[in-house]
Amino acid sequence: MRDRVRVFAPASASNLGPGFDVLGLALQEPGDIVEVSRSETPGIQILEVTGAPSLNTDPNQNTAGIAGSAVLRQLESAEPRGVDMWVHKQMPLASGLGSSAASSVAGALAVNELFGGLLSRRALVDCALHGEAAASGSMHADNVAPSLLGGIVLVRSYDPLDLVSLPVPPRLRVVVVHPHAEVETAAARRLVEDSRFEISQAVANLGNVAALVSALHSGDLELFGRSIHDALVEPIRAPLVPAFAEVRNAALAVGALGCSISGSGPSVFAFADADDVAAAVADAMQGAFRAAGLESDRYMGPVNTRGARVISAAE
Amino acid sequence: MRDRVRVFAPASASNLGPGFDVLGLALQEPGDIVEVSRSETPGIQILEVTGAPSLNTDPNQNTAGIAGSAVLRQLESAEPRGVDMWVHKQMPLASGLGSSAASSVAGALAVNELFGGLLSRRALVDCALHGEAAASGSMHADNVAPSLLGGIVLVRSYDPLDLVSLPVPPRLRVVVVHPHAEVETAAARRLVEDSRFEISQAVANLGNVAALVSALHSGDLELFGRSIHDALVEPIRAPLVPAFAEVRNAALAVGALGCSISGSGPSVFAFADADDVAAAVADAMQGAFRAAGLESDRYMGPVNTRGARVISAAE
Repeated sequence: MRDRVRVFAPASASNLGPGFDVLGLALQEPGDIVEVSRSETPGIQILEVTGAPSLNTDPNQNTAGIAGSAVLRQLESAEPRGVDMWVHKQMPLASGLGSSAASSVAGALAVNELFGGLLSRRALVDCALHGEAAASGSMHADNVAPSLLGGIVLVRSYDPLDLVSLPVPPRLRVVVVHPHAEVETAAARRLVEDSRFEISQAVANLGNVAALVSALHSGDLELFGRSIHDALVEPIRAPLVPAFAEVRNAALAVGALGCSISGSGPSVFAFADADDVAAAVADAMQGAFRAAGLESDRYMGPVNTRGARVISAAE
Repeated sequence: MRDRVRVFAPASASNLGPGFDVLGLALQEPGDIVEVSRSETPGIQILEVTGAPSLNTDPNQNTAGIAGSAVLRQLESAEPRGVDMWVHKQMPLASGLGSSAASSVAGALAVNELFGGLLSRRALVDCALHGEAAASGSMHADNVAPSLLGGIVLVRSYDPLDLVSLPVPPRLRVVVVHPHAEVETAAARRLVEDSRFEISQAVANLGNVAALVSALHSGDLELFGRSIHDALVEPIRAPLVPAFAEVRNAALAVGALGCSISGSGPSVFAFADADDVAAAVADAMQGAFRAAGLESDRYMGPVNTRGARVISAAE
């Protein structure tokens, strides 16, 4: 029986251009760490949140706590179970990198592992969605699912939740650059939800998201790159990301396969087909942000096909 | 050198549920036949149109003639070439089965074959699109491309035209039932083009079209069936198809994988995973149309992976 478990849940890039609310992938880093141990006090207590002073330690308001509580309910123990939880935020909030999803996933996985890992990863997605919903105001699986399951995940439908794991071409590299600016997720969503779209915009995204999925299956990275095109949401959100056009142009100029906004932004992602290209793309993107007066962080590497994982556990 | 060529171009089902304007597949039948022979008179003369009294024999107004003329221009012969053409319509107009596309494709392929087959199938798509545009009022490749290339074709983008041939699972069967009613294609399009859509409608189709493509690659026919769902266009067009809800329910009740409107309708397509299921689905769909007072024609079989073909040629 485990007394203490420490888990890591990775950040994620959602939308991937044409796939608003339906596509996401897991990054190698950054990510959040949640540690849990058994307690005599029933329910979840958050003893500490590090790395994000603004976050609440009330377990009913913290995404990791909400997700962990959902796991406890699913486990349906005869005797009430108690959990002490420590949340270590290691990634920026409101960055477009699925920060709240990573905390939710880490909270759900940690509590499940503490009590024997009885729930499947798929069942944990449902639990983690409760935490994510508290943060974003509505249910979105395109960060939670890749963070938990790893790889590139398609959300075919939300009701019922129907997830499809897509193949990850081995040569694919993803670059994410996070400029030091914030975009409020809920406000960015409202802009989209209040908009009305022409059929031609939908058709453009339908063609591209379908081609993107086909390219992942066939390993055609050229086609994959051409498919990173968003006629629906990017036109609305691009003005919220400082210097977005310049950053994208810089990425494409040095060989990025494609480039768009990660989630609600302000992070911007790009794809490449080799490590050296990815490094050049990251340099170019950071340079373009810097020219606009913004410092930034960069993350790059293969897609994280493992997803959330246990770092250490003590009996 | 060929003096006379006879070609067949198949009907096609477009949209396939979630893929408005971007997905189409070729049927085994019905289809159109175009016959051509060399003539001393430069340009194209249509000597006869059978099977559709309303169609024009003016080569500048008939889709087969327009497409054939586009091929002549592409061939760029030093000396002007002349073609006599016979068009045999063997499928209903305004049926949602790509009737004008089939004639365009047959016209383009016939003329190309008559002069040595110099243009590639991909180049013929461009020529056939000219004919299709004349009939529908705008450029749509989702019938032309599958009729010419065969199989299931994705139109990633229209400008530039970017086509992706998708895998066809061997067990897949398609059923199309054409009720004896007409829907005017241009009017059906205007309804869609005048509409404005919520992001949630687009998201539903994005998830489903992406899953549909993934299912074709993985051969998962259950997932394929679940993905035949259209939240964008079907709600607008369903009222134009008599008894559509009853026909779909009848199809699904006897084992159809999925069912939706073919093109602008009134034809309705369904998928099945075996010949006997396809036959039961066709019976059920025709029965539901009959209960609404409509006779109908049925077509069923595997997807036509060959596309348009030469039937006979004489030296």
